[in-house]
Amino acid sequence: MNYGIAIFPSKPIQDQANAYRKRYDPHYALIPPHITLKRSFEANDDKLDELITEMKHIANETDRFTIHINKVSTFSPVTNTIYFKVEPVQALMDLQAKMHVDKFEDNNEHPFVPHITIAQDLVHDEYSDVFGRLKMESFQFEDTIDRFQLLYQLDNGSWTVYETFVFGKEQV
Amino acid sequence: MNYGIAIFPSKPIQDQANAYRKRYDPHYALIPPHITLKRSFEANDDKLDELITEMKHIANETDRFTIHINKVSTFSPVTNTIYFKVEPVQALMDLQAKMHVDKFEDNNEHPFVPHITIAQDLVHDEYSDVFGRLKMESFQFEDTIDRFQLLYQLDNGSWTVYETFVFGKEQV
Repeated sequence: MNYGIAIFPSKPIQDQANAYRKRYDPHYALIPPHITLKRSFEANDDKLDELITEMKHIANETDRFTIHINKVSTFSPVTNTIYFKVEPVQALMDLQAKMHVDKFEDNNEHPFVPHITIAQDLVHDEYSDVFGRLKMESFQFEDTIDRFQLLYQLDNGSWTVYETFVFGKEQV
Repeated sequence: MNYGIAIFPSKPIQDQANAYRKRYDPHYALIPPHITLKRSFEANDDKLDELITEMKHIANETDRFTIHINKVSTFSPVTNTIYFKVEPVQALMDLQAKMHVDKFEDNNEHPFVPHITIAQDLVHDEYSDVFGRLKMESFQFEDTIDRFQLLYQLDNGSWTVYETFVFGKEQV
Protein backbone atom coordinates (compact mmCIF):
# COMPACT_ATOMS: atom_id res chain seq x y z
CA MET A 1 0.00 0.00 0.00
CA ASN A 2 1.15 3.55 -0.67
CA TYR A 3 1.42 5.87 2.31
CA GLY A 4 2.28 9.53 2.74
CA ILE A 5 2.69 11.95 5.66
CA ALA A 6 1.22 15.44 5.64
CA ILE A 7 0.13 18.42 7.72
CA PHE A 8 -3.33 19.89 7.12
CA PRO A 9 -3.23 23.62 7.89
CA SER A 10 -6.18 25.31 9.61
CA LYS A 11 -9.53 25.74 7.88
CA PRO A 12 -9.00 29.40 6.77
CA ILE A 13 -5.80 28.43 4.93
CA GLN A 14 -7.42 25.32 3.40
CA ASP A 15 -10.42 27.36 2.27
CA GLN A 16 -8.21 29.98 0.61
CA ALA A 17 -6.08 27.29 -1.05
CA ASN A 18 -9.17 25.47 -2.30
CA ALA A 19 -10.51 28.66 -3.87
CA TYR A 20 -7.52 28.43 -6.25
CA ARG A 21 -7.20 24.64 -6.37
CA LYS A 22 -10.77 24.24 -7.56
CA ARG A 23 -9.82 25.98 -10.79
CA TYR A 24 -6.10 25.32 -11.11
CA ASP A 25 -5.22 22.00 -9.47
CA PRO A 26 -6.37 18.66 -10.93
CA HIS A 27 -5.58 17.06 -7.54
CA TYR A 28 -8.25 19.23 -5.89
CA ALA A 29 -10.58 16.30 -5.20
CA LEU A 30 -7.88 13.81 -4.16
CA ILE A 31 -6.70 15.34 -0.88
CA PRO A 32 -7.39 18.48 1.21
CA PRO A 33 -4.81 21.30 1.02
CA HIS A 34 -1.68 20.13 2.81
CA ILE A 35 2.04 20.44 3.48
CA THR A 36 3.70 17.20 2.34
CA LEU A 37 6.18 15.94 4.92
CA LYS A 38 6.95 12.64 3.19
CA ARG A 39 5.94 11.84 -0.35
CA SER A 40 4.33 8.54 -1.34
CA PHE A 41 6.18 5.44 -0.12
CA GLU A 42 5.32 1.75 -0.03
CA ALA A 43 5.11 -0.27 3.16
CA ASN A 44 3.71 -3.65 4.17
CA ASP A 45 1.81 -4.10 7.45
CA ASP A 46 4.85 -5.07 9.52
CA LYS A 47 6.91 -2.17 8.26
CA LEU A 48 3.99 0.17 8.83
CA ASP A 49 3.67 -0.89 12.47
CA GLU A 50 7.33 -0.13 12.95
CA LEU A 51 6.99 3.28 11.31
CA ILE A 52 3.87 4.15 13.34
CA THR A 53 5.87 3.59 16.53
CA GLU A 54 8.55 5.89 15.12
CA MET A 55 5.96 8.52 14.25
CA LYS A 56 4.62 8.41 17.82
CA HIS A 57 8.14 8.97 19.14
CA ILE A 58 8.64 11.85 16.71
CA ALA A 59 5.29 13.40 17.69
CA ASN A 60 6.09 13.12 21.39
CA GLU A 61 9.42 14.90 21.04
CA THR A 62 7.99 17.72 18.89
CA ASP A 63 6.57 20.93 20.37
CA ARG A 64 3.80 22.84 18.64
CA PHE A 65 5.18 25.53 16.37
CA THR A 66 3.95 28.46 14.28
CA ILE A 67 4.09 28.68 10.51
CA HIS A 68 3.83 31.80 8.37
CA ILE A 69 2.70 32.19 4.79
CA ASN A 70 3.55 35.53 3.17
CA LYS A 71 3.45 34.90 -0.57
CA VAL A 72 2.96 32.52 -3.43
CA SER A 73 5.94 31.05 -5.22
CA THR A 74 6.63 28.53 -7.97
CA PHE A 75 8.90 25.60 -8.77
CA SER A 76 9.20 26.90 -12.34
CA PRO A 77 11.07 26.08 -14.52
CA VAL A 78 11.36 22.56 -12.96
CA THR A 79 7.56 22.26 -12.77
CA ASN A 80 4.97 24.99 -13.11
CA THR A 81 3.45 24.24 -9.71
CA ILE A 82 2.30 27.37 -7.85
CA TYR A 83 2.13 27.25 -4.08
CA PHE A 84 1.72 29.12 -0.82
CA LYS A 85 5.28 29.35 0.42
CA VAL A 86 5.52 28.21 4.05
CA GLU A 87 8.45 29.96 5.73
CA PRO A 88 10.98 27.24 6.62
CA VAL A 89 11.07 27.42 10.43
CA GLN A 90 13.56 25.05 12.03
CA ALA A 91 10.90 22.99 13.85
CA LEU A 92 9.20 22.15 10.55
CA MET A 93 12.50 21.36 8.81
CA ASP A 94 13.52 19.09 11.71
CA LEU A 95 10.16 17.31 11.70
CA GLN A 96 10.41 16.57 7.99
CA ALA A 97 14.05 15.43 8.29
CA LYS A 98 13.16 12.86 10.97
CA MET A 99 10.86 11.09 8.50
CA HIS A 100 13.74 10.43 6.11
CA VAL A 101 16.32 8.80 8.37
CA ASP A 102 16.79 5.66 10.46
CA LYS A 103 13.79 3.34 9.97
CA PHE A 104 12.32 5.63 7.31
CA GLU A 105 13.47 5.32 3.74
CA ASP A 106 15.01 8.56 2.42
CA ASN A 107 12.63 9.03 -0.52
CA ASN A 108 13.27 12.76 -0.91
CA GLU A 109 13.53 13.72 -4.55
CA HIS A 110 14.51 17.31 -3.82
CA PRO A 111 15.58 19.39 -0.82
CA PHE A 112 12.55 20.10 1.38
CA VAL A 113 10.73 23.31 0.40
CA PRO A 114 7.66 23.59 2.66
CA HIS A 115 4.65 24.56 0.60
CA ILE A 116 0.91 24.20 0.02
CA THR A 117 0.17 23.58 -3.64
CA ILE A 118 -2.57 25.76 -5.12
CA ALA A 119 -2.04 25.14 -8.86
CA GLN A 120 -0.30 22.49 -10.96
CA ASP A 121 -0.27 20.89 -14.41
CA LEU A 122 -1.36 24.14 -16.08
CA VAL A 123 -0.57 24.83 -19.71
CA HIS A 124 2.14 27.44 -20.06
CA ASP A 125 -0.04 30.43 -20.89
CA GLU A 126 -2.42 29.74 -18.04
CA TYR A 127 0.49 29.24 -15.65
CA SER A 128 1.97 32.62 -16.64
CA ASP A 129 -1.35 34.33 -16.27
CA VAL A 130 -2.19 32.81 -12.87
CA PHE A 131 1.26 33.23 -11.37
CA GLY A 132 1.56 36.75 -12.72
CA ARG A 133 -1.66 37.66 -10.98
CA LEU A 134 -1.06 35.85 -7.68
CA LYS A 135 2.49 37.06 -7.15
CA MET A 136 1.12 40.63 -7.00
CA GLU A 137 -1.34 39.71 -4.26
CA SER A 138 -0.67 39.87 -0.55
CA PHE A 139 -1.18 36.74 1.54
CA GLN A 140 -0.70 36.74 5.29
CA PHE A 141 -1.46 33.54 7.14
CA GLU A 142 -0.25 32.33 10.51
CA ASP A 143 -1.05 28.92 11.89
CA THR A 144 -0.14 26.77 14.88
CA ILE A 145 0.89 23.24 13.96
CA ASP A 146 0.36 20.57 16.62
CA ARG A 147 -0.09 17.35 14.62
CA PHE A 148 0.62 15.46 11.43
CA GLN A 149 -1.28 12.77 9.56
CA LEU A 150 -0.43 9.40 8.02
CA LEU A 151 -2.47 8.74 4.88
CA TYR A 152 -2.87 5.90 2.39
CA GLN A 153 -3.80 6.07 -1.25
CA LEU A 154 -6.88 4.49 -2.82
CA ASP A 155 -7.03 3.08 -6.35
CA ASN A 156 -8.60 6.30 -7.66
CA GLY A 157 -5.56 8.29 -6.50
CA SER A 158 -7.30 9.90 -3.51
CA TRP A 159 -5.91 9.78 0.02
CA THR A 160 -7.59 8.58 3.24
CA VAL A 161 -6.22 9.44 6.70
CA TYR A 162 -5.09 6.36 8.61
CA GLU A 163 -3.82 7.98 11.78
CA THR A 164 -3.21 11.36 13.41
CA PHE A 165 -0.15 12.05 15.55
CA VAL A 166 -0.59 14.89 18.06
CA PHE A 167 2.61 16.49 19.37
CA GLY A 168 3.47 15.49 22.92
CA LYS A 169 0.46 13.23 23.38
CA GLU A 170 1.00 9.83 21.76
CA GLN A 171 0.96 6.69 23.89
CA VAL A 172 3.70 4.41 22.55
CA MET B 1 -17.10 24.89 12.78
CA ASN B 2 -18.97 21.80 11.58
CA TYR B 3 -17.65 18.45 12.75
CA GLY B 4 -18.60 14.86 12.06
CA ILE B 5 -17.45 11.42 13.24
CA ALA B 6 -16.90 8.52 10.85
CA ILE B 7 -15.23 5.17 10.29
CA PHE B 8 -13.23 4.65 7.11
CA PRO B 9 -13.41 0.98 6.13
CA SER B 10 -10.35 -0.80 4.69
CA LYS B 11 -8.98 0.06 1.26
CA PRO B 12 -10.66 -2.84 -0.64
CA ILE B 13 -14.10 -1.71 0.58
CA GLN B 14 -13.34 1.95 -0.16
CA ASP B 15 -12.11 1.06 -3.65
CA GLN B 16 -15.26 -0.94 -4.42
CA ALA B 17 -17.49 1.81 -3.04
CA ASN B 18 -15.64 4.45 -5.06
CA ALA B 19 -16.15 2.46 -8.26
CA TYR B 20 -19.87 3.18 -7.83
CA ARG B 21 -19.60 6.59 -6.14
CA LYS B 22 -17.57 7.99 -9.02
CA ARG B 23 -20.62 7.62 -11.25
CA TYR B 24 -23.52 7.75 -8.84
CA ASP B 25 -22.63 9.91 -5.82
CA PRO B 26 -22.17 13.68 -6.13
CA HIS B 27 -20.36 13.60 -2.75
CA TYR B 28 -17.64 11.39 -4.26
CA ALA B 29 -14.96 14.10 -4.08
CA LEU B 30 -15.95 15.47 -0.66
CA ILE B 31 -15.01 12.57 1.61
CA PRO B 32 -13.67 9.00 1.24
CA PRO B 33 -16.19 6.14 1.59
CA HIS B 34 -17.24 5.95 5.23
CA ILE B 35 -19.69 4.81 7.89
CA THR B 36 -21.14 7.93 9.53
CA LEU B 37 -21.18 7.59 13.33
CA LYS B 38 -22.35 11.14 14.03
CA ARG B 39 -23.70 13.49 11.41
CA SER B 40 -22.59 17.10 11.10
CA PHE B 41 -22.72 19.08 14.35
CA GLU B 42 -21.44 22.48 15.39
CA ALA B 43 -18.93 23.02 18.18
CA ASN B 44 -16.70 25.86 19.35
CA ASP B 45 -13.11 25.21 20.47
CA ASP B 46 -13.94 24.75 24.15
CA LYS B 47 -16.77 22.33 23.43
CA LEU B 48 -14.56 20.46 20.98
CA ASP B 49 -11.83 19.97 23.61
CA GLU B 50 -14.45 18.51 25.93
CA LEU B 51 -15.75 16.17 23.23
CA ILE B 52 -12.24 15.05 22.23
CA THR B 53 -11.64 13.92 25.81
CA GLU B 54 -14.94 12.03 25.64
CA MET B 55 -13.94 10.41 22.35
CA LYS B 56 -10.65 9.27 23.88
CA HIS B 57 -12.57 7.65 26.75
CA ILE B 58 -14.93 6.00 24.28
CA ALA B 59 -12.03 4.72 22.16
CA ASN B 60 -10.26 3.33 25.20
CA GLU B 61 -13.30 1.35 26.35
CA THR B 62 -14.02 -0.06 22.89
CA ASP B 63 -12.51 -3.34 21.64
CA ARG B 64 -11.81 -3.88 17.96
CA PHE B 65 -14.73 -5.60 16.23
CA THR B 66 -15.58 -7.15 12.87
CA ILE B 67 -18.10 -5.81 10.40
CA HIS B 68 -19.76 -7.68 7.56
CA ILE B 69 -21.24 -6.37 4.32
CA ASN B 70 -23.42 -8.82 2.42
CA LYS B 71 -25.61 -6.70 0.18
CA VAL B 72 -26.68 -3.31 -1.03
CA SER B 73 -29.83 -1.72 0.30
CA THR B 74 -31.70 1.58 -0.02
CA PHE B 75 -33.47 4.16 2.11
CA SER B 76 -36.18 4.42 -0.56
CA PRO B 77 -38.85 5.78 -0.46
CA VAL B 78 -37.49 8.24 2.19
CA THR B 79 -34.46 9.03 0.03
CA ASN B 80 -33.15 7.13 -2.97
CA THR B 81 -29.73 6.64 -1.40
CA ILE B 82 -28.17 3.25 -2.21
CA TYR B 83 -25.62 1.82 0.21
CA PHE B 84 -23.54 -1.14 1.29
CA LYS B 85 -25.49 -2.42 4.28
CA VAL B 86 -23.20 -2.94 7.27
CA GLU B 87 -24.63 -5.67 9.49
CA PRO B 88 -25.56 -4.00 12.81
CA VAL B 89 -23.26 -5.75 15.28
CA GLN B 90 -23.74 -4.68 18.89
CA ALA B 91 -20.24 -3.17 19.23
CA LEU B 92 -20.91 -0.79 16.35
CA MET B 93 -24.38 0.13 17.63
CA ASP B 94 -22.95 0.80 21.11
CA LEU B 95 -20.14 2.92 19.71
CA GLN B 96 -22.55 5.08 17.75
CA ALA B 97 -24.94 5.41 20.72
CA LYS B 98 -22.16 6.76 22.98
CA MET B 99 -21.69 9.72 20.63
CA HIS B 100 -25.29 10.83 21.16
CA VAL B 101 -25.57 10.95 24.96
CA ASP B 102 -24.07 12.86 27.91
CA LYS B 103 -21.75 15.61 26.64
CA PHE B 104 -22.69 14.88 23.04
CA GLU B 105 -25.78 16.45 21.54
CA ASP B 106 -28.28 13.85 20.32
CA ASN B 107 -28.43 15.03 16.71
CA ASN B 108 -29.74 11.74 15.30
CA GLU B 109 -32.41 12.34 12.68
CA HIS B 110 -33.26 8.65 12.31
CA PRO B 111 -32.50 5.39 14.10
CA PHE B 112 -28.91 4.32 13.31
CA VAL B 113 -28.67 2.14 10.20
CA PRO B 114 -24.96 1.44 9.63
CA HIS B 115 -24.13 1.90 5.97
CA ILE B 116 -21.61 3.06 3.37
CA THR B 117 -23.29 5.25 0.75
CA ILE B 118 -22.48 4.33 -2.86
CA ALA B 119 -25.16 6.34 -4.70
CA GLN B 120 -27.38 9.32 -3.88
CA ASP B 121 -29.33 12.18 -5.44
CA LEU B 122 -30.08 10.14 -8.57
CA VAL B 123 -33.09 10.89 -10.73
CA HIS B 124 -35.78 8.28 -10.32
CA ASP B 125 -35.14 6.27 -13.48
CA GLU B 126 -31.42 6.07 -12.85
CA TYR B 127 -32.03 5.09 -9.22
CA SER B 128 -34.31 2.23 -10.31
CA ASP B 129 -31.84 1.07 -12.90
CA VAL B 130 -28.79 1.16 -10.59
CA PHE B 131 -30.54 -0.39 -7.58
CA GLY B 132 -32.19 -3.03 -9.75
CA ARG B 133 -28.79 -4.07 -11.02
CA LEU B 134 -26.85 -3.89 -7.72
CA LYS B 135 -29.42 -5.76 -5.62
CA MET B 136 -28.85 -8.80 -7.85
CA GLU B 137 -25.11 -8.73 -7.27
CA SER B 138 -23.28 -10.50 -4.49
CA PHE B 139 -21.07 -8.47 -2.14
CA GLN B 140 -19.05 -10.11 0.60
CA PHE B 141 -16.80 -7.90 2.67
CA GLU B 142 -15.40 -8.40 6.13
CA ASP B 143 -13.37 -5.78 7.95
CA THR B 144 -11.82 -5.24 11.36
CA ILE B 145 -12.63 -1.86 12.88
CA ASP B 146 -10.12 -0.49 15.38
CA ARG B 147 -10.53 3.31 15.11
CA PHE B 148 -12.78 6.22 14.25
CA GLN B 149 -12.10 9.70 12.94
CA LEU B 150 -13.19 13.23 13.86
CA LEU B 151 -13.52 15.43 10.77
CA TYR B 152 -14.34 19.08 10.08
CA GLN B 153 -15.98 20.57 7.03
CA LEU B 154 -14.40 23.11 4.70
CA ASP B 155 -16.30 25.87 2.88
CA ASN B 156 -16.45 23.77 -0.29
CA GLY B 157 -18.33 21.02 1.56
CA SER B 158 -15.37 18.62 1.75
CA TRP B 159 -14.16 17.05 4.99
CA THR B 160 -10.67 17.06 6.53
CA VAL B 161 -9.64 14.66 9.30
CA TYR B 162 -8.81 16.43 12.54
CA GLU B 163 -8.01 13.47 14.75
CA THR B 164 -7.98 9.68 14.82
CA PHE B 165 -9.04 7.68 17.87
CA VAL B 166 -7.59 4.17 18.07
CA PHE B 167 -9.44 1.70 20.29
CA GLY B 168 -7.68 0.98 23.58
CA LYS B 169 -4.75 3.29 22.89
CA GLU B 170 -5.64 6.91 23.59
CA GLN B 171 -3.77 8.88 26.25
CA VAL B 172 -6.33 11.04 28.04
